[in-house]
This record gives sequence, C-alpha cells and structure tokens, in this order.
Amino acid sequence: MSIQYFLELAGTGFFALSGATVANQKSKPDWFGVTFIGFITSIGGGSIRDMLLGAYPLSWVADVNRIYVIIVAIVLTSVFYNQFSKLRKTFFLFDSLGIALFTILGTEKALLYHVTPLVAAIMGMFSAIMGGVMRDVLTNEVPVIFRKEIYATACLIGAAIYLLLLQLDINRNVSLIASSLVILIIRIIAVRYKLSLPQFKREK
Amino acid sequence: MSIQYFLELAGTGFFALSGATVANQKSKPDWFGVTFIGFITSIGGGSIRDMLLGAYPLSWVADVNRIYVIIVAIVLTSVFYNQFSKLRKTFFLFDSLGIALFTILGTEKALLYHVTPLVAAIMGMFSAIMGGVMRDVLTNEVPVIFRKEIYATACLIGAAIYLLLLQLDINRNVSLIASSLVILIIRIIAVRYKLSLPQFKREK
Amino acid sequence: MSIQYFLELAGTGFFALSGATVANQKSKPDWFGVTFIGFITSIGGGSIRDMLLGAYPLSWVADVNRIYVIIVAIVLTSVFYNQFSKLRKTFFLFDSLGIALFTILGTEKALLYHVTPLVAAIMGMFSAIMGGVMRDVLTNEVPVIFRKEIYATACLIGAAIYLLLLQLDINRNVSLIASSLVILIIRIIAVRYKLSLPQFKREK
Repeated sequence: MSIQYFLELAGTGFFALSGATVANQKSKPDWFGVTFIGFITSIGGGSIRDMLLGAYPLSWVADVNRIYVIIVAIVLTSVFYNQFSKLRKTFFLFDSLGIALFTILGTEKALLYHVTPLVAAIMGMFSAIMGGVMRDVLTNEVPVIFRKEIYATACLIGAAIYLLLLQLDINRNVSLIASSLVILIIRIIAVRYKLSLPQFKREK
Repeated sequence: MSIQYFLELAGTGFFALSGATVANQKSKPDWFGVTFIGFITSIGGGSIRDMLLGAYPLSWVADVNRIYVIIVAIVLTSVFYNQFSKLRKTFFLFDSLGIALFTILGTEKALLYHVTPLVAAIMGMFSAIMGGVMRDVLTNEVPVIFRKEIYATACLIGAAIYLLLLQLDINRNVSLIASSLVILIIRIIAVRYKLSLPQFKREK
Repeated sequence: MSIQYFLELAGTGFFALSGATVANQKSKPDWFGVTFIGFITSIGGGSIRDMLLGAYPLSWVADVNRIYVIIVAIVLTSVFYNQFSKLRKTFFLFDSLGIALFTILGTEKALLYHVTPLVAAIMGMFSAIMGGVMRDVLTNEVPVIFRKEIYATACLIGAAIYLLLLQLDINRNVSLIASSLVILIIRIIAVRYKLSLPQFKREK
C-alpha cells in the first residue's frame, strides 16, 4: 500500500467522522441518517468531481476499501463520541490535512482528463469542499464554506501553487507536499487570527 | 410488455403521485412546482444511480413511457386529491412495494457494471430513496429517511438478501420476489410497531 | 466568434451576475460564497443537462472562456452593485433573454444525443432553470420557480415550438429566434399582468 493511498483512506475516514459528528449535532438523525450523511460527506466531493469529468468508475465504486473505512470511522465516532468532542484542535488539524490532500489529488486527477489548469484547480477545490456542501444541504443549513474562515479559497490557492510547481518541472511528490502545506498553513493562520474573506456587499 | 416492466412503470407512477402529494402539503407550489417535484421524486433515485455508475442513457431518457406515466399520475393526483388523502394505508402499501421493487432492480442494474456486492446494495438503496431525498431538499425539509421508521435500512437488508440468494444460484425471479417481500415485511412491521433505528448519540 | 457563441457567453455572464446578486441579498455570504453561488447558477443548468445526457466534456470544462466571463461578471457585480439594483427592468429583460436562449440551445444539444422530443424539451428547460434551483437550494430557500410567474412553463412551451418548427423544416436560425421570442413574450406578459399558474390543490 503506497503512502498516498494510505493518506487517501485516512482522509476518507476522517471526512466520514467529521460529517457524522456535524450531522449528529445539527439535526439528531437516527443511526442510518448519521451514517448516510457521513458517507456523503466523505465521498461526495470526489463523486461530484468524477461525474463532472466523466471519470468512470468513481473511486468508491471501484475500491470497496473506502466504504469499509467509512463504516469503521462511523462506528468509532459512535463509540468515542464524547472523547472526540473534546479534541477540537486535533480535529481541526485532521480536517485541514484532509482538505489539503483531497484538493491536490483532485487537481491531479482532473489533469488526467486534459482540462485547463483553471478547471483543474476548480475540480481540486470541489473534491475537498463538495462533500461538506452536500452535508449542509442535507441537514438544511446554509453551507458553512460561505461564511467560514478562508476555507475553499485556501484550496484554490494550494491548487494554483501545485499547478505552478508542476509547470516548473518540480518533482511531483515535492509539489504535492509543498502545496498541501500551503493550504494547511493558510487554514491555521486564518483560524488562529480569525481571518475571513470580506463580505461581498452590504445592502444599504 | 413483461410483468417486470409493468411493475417498473407502476412504481414510477406511484412515486410521482406520492412526490406530488407531499410537495403540495409542504410548500404549496403551483402546478409546475408540483409536477417538477413529482417528476424528480420519481426519476431521481434511478438517475443518481445511473449517473454514479456512468450507465448512459438514463432509463427515463431512453424510455419516454416513463414520462407519460408520470404525467398521468400527476393529473390523477390533482383530480382525486381528496380521495387519495383518505387512503393512507393503501398508499403506504404502494410506497413500500415501490421502494422494494426499485431497490432490487437497482441492485441488479448495478451488477451489470461489475461492481462489488456492497456497492450494488448501496446503488439499490439509492435507487429507492434518493428521489425522496431530493424531494425533501427541494421543499426545504430535512430528509424524512433520516428519522422515519426503518426505511433505507430495510432496502439495504433486502438488497443483501437478494445478493445472497443470487450467490446461492437461486432462480432470479424467486430471488427478486423473496427479497422484495423482505423489504415489504420489514416496513410493515416497523410502521405497525413504530420501530425506529436508535438515535446516533445524544449530546449531553 | 459566431453570434451564437457570443450570446451564450453573454447569457453565462448574466446568469452569474444574477446568481451573485440574489445570493448576496439572501444570506450575506462572503466573497467566496457569492462567487461560488454565481458560478453554480451560471453553469449549473448546463452541467445537469450534460450529466443527464452523458455529454462529456461539459461545456465549461472544455471552454475556459465561460469561466473568465463568470469571474468578470462577478467583479462587475461587486463594483456596480448599487447601480445594478436600480436596474430591475433591464435585469428582468436580460434574465428572460438568458433563459430563452439557454432553453433553445439546451434543447438543441439534447437532440444531438438522439433523445425523443419530449426529453429534449425537458433537457432544454433544465438548462435554463436548474442553475437557479441549485442557487436557491444552496441559500436554503424553496426554489422560486415553484411559485414565480410562469417561468419554467414558458421554457417548455418555447422548446415545444422550436421542436415543431424544426419538424416543419423551418430554417434553424429562424426557429431559434422565433421560439426564443415566444419564451420572452410569455415572460413579459406573465410579469406585466402578474399571471401565475394555478396552485395545485389547496388542503381543506
């Protein structure tokens, strides 16, 4: 098992865990509801990317390990629910690692379909954020990415840096790590100093 | 016309009828809105399944009869609206028959795309429930499947039994009928005795 | 650049502008949120149509100009926000032109995939309205098309007329212009005289 594949599985599990936790806080669904929303949060972004690209079969359809990981993550969420809710900082770190990794791997996958760099960056960002958007729509909330500290924008910047480094013929693994770190660091700074993007325009 | 095709059309019509009825109760849309939501409720689950599998053309795109059936169902809903609302038990039976049939046929269709049994069962469940999930999202409700008496879980169990029977080389029609009956019976028992899945985890 | 392509880009930009404006009025998202919703409003309808047809690559994936136009439109929305909000009549006209054009071009694209006329008309309507439906779902509103003055219905009528004219071997450009005008005129009359479709059925 390559390190990349291990990281992808870890990200998949963590997204399921965070999706299940948020779903449970918001609308108190039953076991099925929490599992369903955890599942969608985890595989939603990659599925949207693949359906937009026509990249069949989808990752979770072709690789059943991802589904096992999601199931295990949701069982763990249930067992350790109270312990997990005390680990806010650890969670934030894992979440940020997850979006960083999903963004760059998503950008990379899009490039296989010969899209322009701008489209590849958008596909990378979609991979990272669309699961959370679907989670919020299903729990009847306005998606948090529309308000939260610089989140999707960090993904776009990281994807842009990855594409730039590739263009400069930098080694792929170096590019992947460097651009993921950029996303991670932007997230940490944004949350630490409560930086948000400006509001679009106030009504008068 | 085979019995299976007849049942599929009947399920399509019934899903449109129930989607239109629920939409009308919730948010009082106009004629177009009710028709639109009835249409999405009816073809939504199968469309999601096919788009996830890359199974083109989608059933309703290839077979215009399904659209005619939906239109007829919605006109009937309008004409007999008050009579229909008294038939709650009959409705429940049709709804349960519909989800049972859609689950097993959806599972079967997924197998044509060489997916693993777990993915096939998920695709079967998606066929049965995703139309209703979209209906609830469009009418700005938290999807009922997250709270209702054992619903999607019944689909997963039925799909699992179907796959098991196939594995045991049981005749396909026998497997289809037996596993559909399992879904139907679980639903009837769950509603009769108000059985729900446990809540995931209460916040303290 | 053909006139049709120019009109498509103009429609894309205008849909982004109107999506960004509505998003900003509704839920006060940040810059990213407004841009994201403007983007989805603009390319959502065509993407749904293409994903339902299996028409890969999607237009905006293949043609990066559409994304540039959306970005420019959103920057303009920000700069001229207050001026724009006074131009309600002009906006209404552009919006109606946009849906008319998207409907007919969407219908035309569907025909390339050998669908029946009824499916082609539905795909045309989806091209025009689904971006707005997604915008409303993302801002946690019941879609306006379910209540607004004859809107999606106008698209269906225009698409039907376009298909009829094609059937009669009328020149394609003439058909396109005539059927777009029908949509435009229905919209203008509906809004001018506050015509709505009847409610489906009142609960007693």
